[in-house]
Amino acid sequence: MSDKKLQRSNSTRYYFDDPDMDFIFQWSAGAAKTGGLDAGELFHVAARIADGDTASWVREFEAYGDDQRELAETWRRRGWRRSAGEAQMKAYYCYRQAWQFAGRGELFEPLIHKYEAAFAEAVDLLGLPLEFLEVPFEDNSLPGLRLDAGPDAPTLIVIGGGDTGREDMYHLIGYNAWQRGYTAVIVDMPGQGSTPLRGLYFMAETERPIGAVVDHLVDKYGQDPARLAIVGMSGGGYMVSRAVMTERRLAACVASTPVSDMGQILPVGVVRAMATEGAMRDSFQMYLWRSGCDTPEEFAELLTTFRADPAQVRCAYLAIAGAGESPTFLEQARRWHDGLPVATKALVELDAASGADAHCQINNPTRLAQEICGWLDEVLPRP
Amino acid sequence: MSDKKLQRSNSTRYYFDDPDMDFIFQWSAGAAKTGGLDAGELFHVAARIADGDTASWVREFEAYGDDQRELAETWRRRGWRRSAGEAQMKAYYCYRQAWQFAGRGELFEPLIHKYEAAFAEAVDLLGLPLEFLEVPFEDNSLPGLRLDAGPDAPTLIVIGGGDTGREDMYHLIGYNAWQRGYTAVIVDMPGQGSTPLRGLYFMAETERPIGAVVDHLVDKYGQDPARLAIVGMSGGGYMVSRAVMTERRLAACVASTPVSDMGQILPVGVVRAMATEGAMRDSFQMYLWRSGCDTPEEFAELLTTFRADPAQVRCAYLAIAGAGESPTFLEQARRWHDGLPVATKALVELDAASGADAHCQINNPTRLAQEICGWLDEVLPRP
Repeated sequence: MSDKKLQRSNSTRYYFDDPDMDFIFQWSAGAAKTGGLDAGELFHVAARIADGDTASWVREFEAYGDDQRELAETWRRRGWRRSAGEAQMKAYYCYRQAWQFAGRGELFEPLIHKYEAAFAEAVDLLGLPLEFLEVPFEDNSLPGLRLDAGPDAPTLIVIGGGDTGREDMYHLIGYNAWQRGYTAVIVDMPGQGSTPLRGLYFMAETERPIGAVVDHLVDKYGQDPARLAIVGMSGGGYMVSRAVMTERRLAACVASTPVSDMGQILPVGVVRAMATEGAMRDSFQMYLWRSGCDTPEEFAELLTTFRADPAQVRCAYLAIAGAGESPTFLEQARRWHDGLPVATKALVELDAASGADAHCQINNPTRLAQEICGWLDEVLPRP
Repeated sequence: MSDKKLQRSNSTRYYFDDPDMDFIFQWSAGAAKTGGLDAGELFHVAARIADGDTASWVREFEAYGDDQRELAETWRRRGWRRSAGEAQMKAYYCYRQAWQFAGRGELFEPLIHKYEAAFAEAVDLLGLPLEFLEVPFEDNSLPGLRLDAGPDAPTLIVIGGGDTGREDMYHLIGYNAWQRGYTAVIVDMPGQGSTPLRGLYFMAETERPIGAVVDHLVDKYGQDPARLAIVGMSGGGYMVSRAVMTERRLAACVASTPVSDMGQILPVGVVRAMATEGAMRDSFQMYLWRSGCDTPEEFAELLTTFRADPAQVRCAYLAIAGAGESPTFLEQARRWHDGLPVATKALVELDAASGADAHCQINNPTRLAQEICGWLDEVLPRP
């Protein structure tokens, strides 16, 4: 498939002809339930964007974020604390989505600071039981979020992918898992979120940072490994799969999708296309930033080292894949599932009718949480 | 404006060219946060509907509701109670939206029974503190829902409009108000919901059924009128405005929008157009059913009796209007606000940038709840 493009969303066009803009639009629409923009707001912004024109995308989302931030401040002064928090969360969402296509231009770093600040302000105003973590990692640290579901709750570590930061995973999984009784610990792996600003980049040996997260949970929170699970989304599907080959303090692992060979999914031909075609080319600049690479070829070479082997896994495992993704995702998920030498394993393939067929189920986070938490409820021992 | 069509949604097209299909689509997209379909599910259904073809709309939404109901049953058997409840709520949502364009065909009544059953099952599975009410009304009764926010909570009576039933108002306002600390009492007025099946039809004298609701709350729940408010949406904006001309046991009233002269909004020319044009003609059959009328002319004649006068109002009043509605809505809202002889009153006009500019703020129910509850928090006395 070296001459093909990466396919992430389903065949239903939501708003944009540019496939990557439409993917991010779908993702944004799916996030309404956890505090992203309401439908009317999202379509209002979208209607002001020229299809495929990333400059107008960045401008309109940032401007709408500024409007939401101003509204939040007005409401905060008026004593409408919850509403102010909701508007700040929408401001966060706008800044973060603006950033997706900011392409390392002059707005790239300022938008990171704006979305991080808005998210933190929203958490404070909403009174969420959410702690900002710094997980010690070698001579550095990994930023995280811990959404506390109480002393008897099992813990779910949440790992995102190549596009995402901890705040994204709060919306895609963390909040929903917390509502279902899981303490969600969302940690940025090297290269994710804003960690390149602290000199951390994508790496193959993900057992190192994930091991550091488990260490931290055991040491600081007295975490019982029998009640500890991990989920990885997109590129995180590689990161967690690699880690559980050797990390034995995780009772269960979920991935959407499990990735055993990243180089097969993103061979150099596909990577080169990402670097040049459509709105994706601006996101691609961000992938280079996350990987510490200078060229598409160097990035593709790094990805060939991202390999995992199911034969070494010993924990319970749930593989999730969507019918709207590139077929390679589904093929690797099936191969991974078949190769797992464990008694407790499941493979969930979500078809178009599920409305959860896009990459990472971004078009139906409810279904994602239902599948993950339903399965974990059955697999993890009760307290 | 007798030669114009009723305008309910904003100028941004979401998915359908047929304006009334697109309005219901916008409404459905806005309901994701309260348990309607997730974005991926809604777009999947929409993609299978032929634009403007109500038969395909009804078929696809009903079929998707059946799928959700089956999923709910699978999950219930597996012990995934919360997820089963969520799927049942989505089944409800599909059946109800299918019904919007069922046009009194052979599916019209069966769909009512299906959506009522799915909603009740969802409430049970989700464990909501929701009571199904029968409010005594003359020689009949009015069906309602009471979502209990605890003994110290103020109470908000929620009244829908010409299209809606109590379950719709649960999604548009009730659930959100409850989350903000209000006990929501949602009651179908004569003609709303499935009340035509019990021989009740739209009536001008709305102080009678609304008085019955207040009686019931005072008698059965010991409601303090100083902590009792009411909100009316769409046609309910007329119903509550008329009622508070004489009902003095309501401390505050909200309407989106206040309607003082329904005949001006829906003159016979507009009504005749509704009866014949586009997908609306099937909804129009439902309006005739709700009103007990046989012809557009008879219906239009009834509407001319729906008149209210702000000069007689004595309670605090919040008027809300959207820039995407027919200008007559906004004009009447402004006139109503200006004519109110009360000290505590406010007029909120929501522009396109608010994403809440559609009729009843169906495209941004979050903003609707923020405006209503924020204002009520300031106006009602603390316990």
